[in-house]
Amino acid sequence: MAKKTSPTTSNTEVKKRKMNATDQKTMAALTGLADEIVGAAERGRAPHLDVPSRSLSNVRYNSTKRFIEMGNGKNRRELFNLSQAKSYMQTVLVSSGCKQLIEEDKTTSIRGLYYLLKHTIEGAREETFDDQADCDPVIEDVEVTLNTLREELHVYASNRGSMVGNITFIDSGDEIDCSRMGSGGYSIPSIVEPDIIQFKKSDAKFVLHVEKDTVWRRFNEDKFWRQHNCILTHGGGQPPRGVRRLLHRLHNELNLPVYCLLDNDPWGYYIYSVIKQGSINLAYESKRMAIPNARYIGLRSKDYDRCNLSPSVTIALSDTDIKRAKQIASYPWFEKKKPWQKEIEQMLKNGFKLEVEALISKTISYVTEEYVPARLAEGDFLD
Amino acid sequence: MAKKTSPTTSNTEVKKRKMNATDQKTMAALTGLADEIVGAAERGRAPHLDVPSRSLSNVRYNSTKRFIEMGNGKNRRELFNLSQAKSYMQTVLVSSGCKQLIEEDKTTSIRGLYYLLKHTIEGAREETFDDQADCDPVIEDVEVTLNTLREELHVYASNRGSMVGNITFIDSGDEIDCSRMGSGGYSIPSIVEPDIIQFKKSDAKFVLHVEKDTVWRRFNEDKFWRQHNCILTHGGGQPPRGVRRLLHRLHNELNLPVYCLLDNDPWGYYIYSVIKQGSINLAYESKRMAIPNARYIGLRSKDYDRCNLSPSVTIALSDTDIKRAKQIASYPWFEKKKPWQKEIEQMLKNGFKLEVEALISKTISYVTEEYVPARLAEGDFLD
Repeated sequence: MAKKTSPTTSNTEVKKRKMNATDQKTMAALTGLADEIVGAAERGRAPHLDVPSRSLSNVRYNSTKRFIEMGNGKNRRELFNLSQAKSYMQTVLVSSGCKQLIEEDKTTSIRGLYYLLKHTIEGAREETFDDQADCDPVIEDVEVTLNTLREELHVYASNRGSMVGNITFIDSGDEIDCSRMGSGGYSIPSIVEPDIIQFKKSDAKFVLHVEKDTVWRRFNEDKFWRQHNCILTHGGGQPPRGVRRLLHRLHNELNLPVYCLLDNDPWGYYIYSVIKQGSINLAYESKRMAIPNARYIGLRSKDYDRCNLSPSVTIALSDTDIKRAKQIASYPWFEKKKPWQKEIEQMLKNGFKLEVEALISKTISYVTEEYVPARLAEGDFLD
Repeated sequence: MAKKTSPTTSNTEVKKRKMNATDQKTMAALTGLADEIVGAAERGRAPHLDVPSRSLSNVRYNSTKRFIEMGNGKNRRELFNLSQAKSYMQTVLVSSGCKQLIEEDKTTSIRGLYYLLKHTIEGAREETFDDQADCDPVIEDVEVTLNTLREELHVYASNRGSMVGNITFIDSGDEIDCSRMGSGGYSIPSIVEPDIIQFKKSDAKFVLHVEKDTVWRRFNEDKFWRQHNCILTHGGGQPPRGVRRLLHRLHNELNLPVYCLLDNDPWGYYIYSVIKQGSINLAYESKRMAIPNARYIGLRSKDYDRCNLSPSVTIALSDTDIKRAKQIASYPWFEKKKPWQKEIEQMLKNGFKLEVEALISKTISYVTEEYVPARLAEGDFLD
């Protein structure tokens, strides 16, 4: 969906194009929304939109599906209601902007969409949006209202994360062989839907997802993925949507286990939680992003003893760390898991956290040559 | 230098390897430093290091070379001086850590080097480094003392920025064809020295460097680089070392003009200034990074009128913006350039800044189909 029909076609003469299945579906949802509004107006009724509520009270953990999902709560947004008219207008405006993007077969960032739609309302001094923060939640509203992914609306999130390993796929018509990507790797785009990326061939046995690019680089430099026949990804911290969606596709379409090598701190636990169960904020996208079978491969609170680490490489827990750790321990999906409770308790007892990079104090390649191979051989993961 | 000799070689049994020319040179500098210290000790003198001063007073603009460079000021660091002993020890320690990295033919991040060297000093309660901030300036000290790039010491900076376009090169033995990189592009690594990356073939006529990944994506999606036969890069804001060094190599080794498409704000001006003249902080690396012939292709203060933009897409200048703009106008390399003085004056007169993304308010592909092609055709750049 990101291909332009022809580089010489000017914007002003965009023709109706043959849409792919995803675009057709999204377009149907967008025009369906517009039809409802017109229908209401024609029947002499006040136009309104029912927007699923993204508040905490409308989010729950589904223990069967094992991910966070949204409930059925909705908020009505009416045109003829002084306090709702502006957000009603904004919702319709964002929908029409996305329609334009799909029609022209182009994508843009949330910043781009904001600029595309920002203008002074005719006959008034009011702006459609005052600033970016005014526009962002409306984009999420449109996503949930239409039950589409942001990417399907041709709006992309940030571009962060890289991949190398034994997999070949097509990206926008180009064949990408991730075993021949040099030191930099393939930069994971934010839109990785099947219209853009089609998997071709993979011998890989699993995906190793590491938290940071610095750690990823150690694994790539040591050609870990070649020796262990895997795919190596990172998300630059909390992985952005594109990385999460790609992991989800690798897991579900290619049946690859996903192992996460994260820091032994509340932030590392939280990243794992988001990869596995989804996040509260993006609960409506869990079904396409959450990987309930993802495994946590380290670092662990017991590693200080197990790996015989020096006190020099420990970092004392802050008050915020302690508070966050307790919050995470009480998440419904961690609450009943003894190994996780033990893991978090041990960290609190230790009084310190450990970064994956700290393993370099053993030897430079300890993490790739000993730590991860040992965990894989033992099958010592947290679930 | 990023290749491991053999994936099964354990760290403990690293053999003397055949070093490439860069590593030999860096190694000679490192052992030279150590020899001086030993020599002093043997002659019964107090060991010391002379570290070039990285303070503002030791930095100047060289109007012949047209970049910022360091002066000859040095600070002596003595072992037998209570206030200098620790920083003396740290400097020697970082040097020895880099020597180890080169010997093992491995690279690491500044975080990794910190963990590699952090320990409690024997017989004392003192740590070698208290935290990362304690270690980072010492790495820079070693760089300037040995007149080497951080990358040559096998320490890398952050990994940010992507590239696509008509160029083929070898990265760590893999052939990378940047015209077949899909939507994500080639992720520019932080070490791009000739040992890692060898250019093979390029038909490209110029490099278009844009500020942000979101803008880069618009150009890639519209296949601008194919139509205009160029290389397209971004640096995720202020470009990291790897991106600057790669631009420098593309410019000098392949004789490609470098055009920078940046925001019409003090930050955009500053990014241009760093790409072109180098930065005060990394003045000692200017000769390998600065591109005095780089050209600024926009956005311009006159674009509000020239492109007939809506007041809705302007962003009012903050007090900080105004202060920064005046500072930049007084930089020696902007001070005598009338077009730049006019540019900055006009921005201050406008009272607002403009982001490249704001051009989407014309049409989605205005920037790729009209704005940049028009500037290239007119040759309307700032120098």
